[in-house]
Amino acid sequence: MELWYSENHTDNVRFSLKIKEHLFSTQSNFQRVDILDTYEYGKLLTLDGLVMVTERDEFVYHDMIVHPSMAVNPNIKNVLIIGGGDGGTARELMRYPNVQHVDMVEIDKMVVDASRKFLPTMSSELDNERVNVLYEDGVEFIKNKNNFYDLILIDSTDPIGPGEGLFTTEFYNNCFKVLKNEGILVNQNETPVYNEFFKVGISSNIKLKKMFPIVEVYQASIPTYPGGYWLFNFASKKYNPIADLKEDDWNSLGLKTKYYNTNLHIGAFSLPNYVKEKFENGNV
Amino acid sequence: MELWYSENHTDNVRFSLKIKEHLFSTQSNFQRVDILDTYEYGKLLTLDGLVMVTERDEFVYHDMIVHPSMAVNPNIKNVLIIGGGDGGTARELMRYPNVQHVDMVEIDKMVVDASRKFLPTMSSELDNERVNVLYEDGVEFIKNKNNFYDLILIDSTDPIGPGEGLFTTEFYNNCFKVLKNEGILVNQNETPVYNEFFKVGISSNIKLKKMFPIVEVYQASIPTYPGGYWLFNFASKKYNPIADLKEDDWNSLGLKTKYYNTNLHIGAFSLPNYVKEKFENGNV
Repeated sequence: MELWYSENHTDNVRFSLKIKEHLFSTQSNFQRVDILDTYEYGKLLTLDGLVMVTERDEFVYHDMIVHPSMAVNPNIKNVLIIGGGDGGTARELMRYPNVQHVDMVEIDKMVVDASRKFLPTMSSELDNERVNVLYEDGVEFIKNKNNFYDLILIDSTDPIGPGEGLFTTEFYNNCFKVLKNEGILVNQNETPVYNEFFKVGISSNIKLKKMFPIVEVYQASIPTYPGGYWLFNFASKKYNPIADLKEDDWNSLGLKTKYYNTNLHIGAFSLPNYVKEKFENGNV
Repeated sequence: MELWYSENHTDNVRFSLKIKEHLFSTQSNFQRVDILDTYEYGKLLTLDGLVMVTERDEFVYHDMIVHPSMAVNPNIKNVLIIGGGDGGTARELMRYPNVQHVDMVEIDKMVVDASRKFLPTMSSELDNERVNVLYEDGVEFIKNKNNFYDLILIDSTDPIGPGEGLFTTEFYNNCFKVLKNEGILVNQNETPVYNEFFKVGISSNIKLKKMFPIVEVYQASIPTYPGGYWLFNFASKKYNPIADLKEDDWNSLGLKTKYYNTNLHIGAFSLPNYVKEKFENGNV
């Protein structure tokens, strides 16, 4: 018997992975959570049937959601992760001695539990004493807080189901308030390849630009994500992601990374014309 | 009825496109040639069942095989295309007034015929008087010529079937001889995402480095190619692809491109660590 997992990237495009074993499946209070063991990409976490992370290519996403900001502001001490239940984002942050405290606000404990059990290379730092895991709604958590974090990483699903509130102006307003004067916010910002995703990405970018003086988009090649090509917003109160890149500082840390480096950092912000133009025009 | 086209990127990864109509299918003297009309990507050309180009994302590949070299040496006049039967590479070259003559050596006339009939946006410049289409084996064509071209673009299939001879040291030697002292060679160099492809890319890179003083790898995000992520070799006798980039010259041409720009040019050569390291190590 052959078992294949498929994700429809659109109604007309399908990506499929051959499966060794369906290891885990449950309906949590928020979404369906599955772990599949694939031949090509190792273990795969899906939420509501969509690829979140695989063991083999998660390094791209986690390098790129964490390291660019850390290389722009080496003094980041307090970090808020919204989502990030697999633990990969917290793991990368824990490589920085300067990071004193991470609040990881994941709405769905089931994602963390599944990751702890089946994805140990990602969840490995969730017991680090500098990581505080809270099982709360990020939208509620961030209300009524002020001027506390140096960095917010929105490591969310797409805005369907539990991720929906993480793409609203109200939420971004609260993020802005809770960031210090040198604060940076990064969110995963969808693929430009398919318009259903790109619309969300452009809308997120527009909302952030209304608040943050500096908002730049950067890119990465993530093979198991739709289009193999993913974007991030870098929204910042003070630091420009290129002009304020501290290459020497970051390189002096001696971190070994599989994807990120400080040359690629600059290249990641150099977008193709079709992507640039659509962000400038504000529609797909 | 639903009709789906699938390409197995590996034995364990499959990419599928929903099909409106199977427009054309034939076995040429060299390979199976098909044209499919897809819902998501417009018309699709496959050779031996593998994606070559789609109407919707061909602009990435054709921008990136042509414009980087043209922006490094604005005096390119004589160009040799090996393969390129769909016509997209010739089309991009025809946008440069300085280009006086293009020899396009495509082994399989059937590919050109199918493209002329079904892919008019790609084949549109094949009747340009500056383009000389030759239905010959590129491996044979290039023997016994010397010091003639400014640029060679190897726009080939993978080294299975008719593309095989285009990945050999002997062929690259002949390319070197036929290039002028300022000559540049670019070839499509596979994806680093899957080792079966990456092995070919690394081998090609090693062979080119034995001849050309400058060989650098650059990247592009091509959604319908395996991994959504593709590499090119830039092999050069004199010009460095970054230090010798003539940004102002290229931008003064006023070419409108959907993917390429001179900032992206620099970023395209900034590879992720896992790719850089494997090229440095010479194996996957």
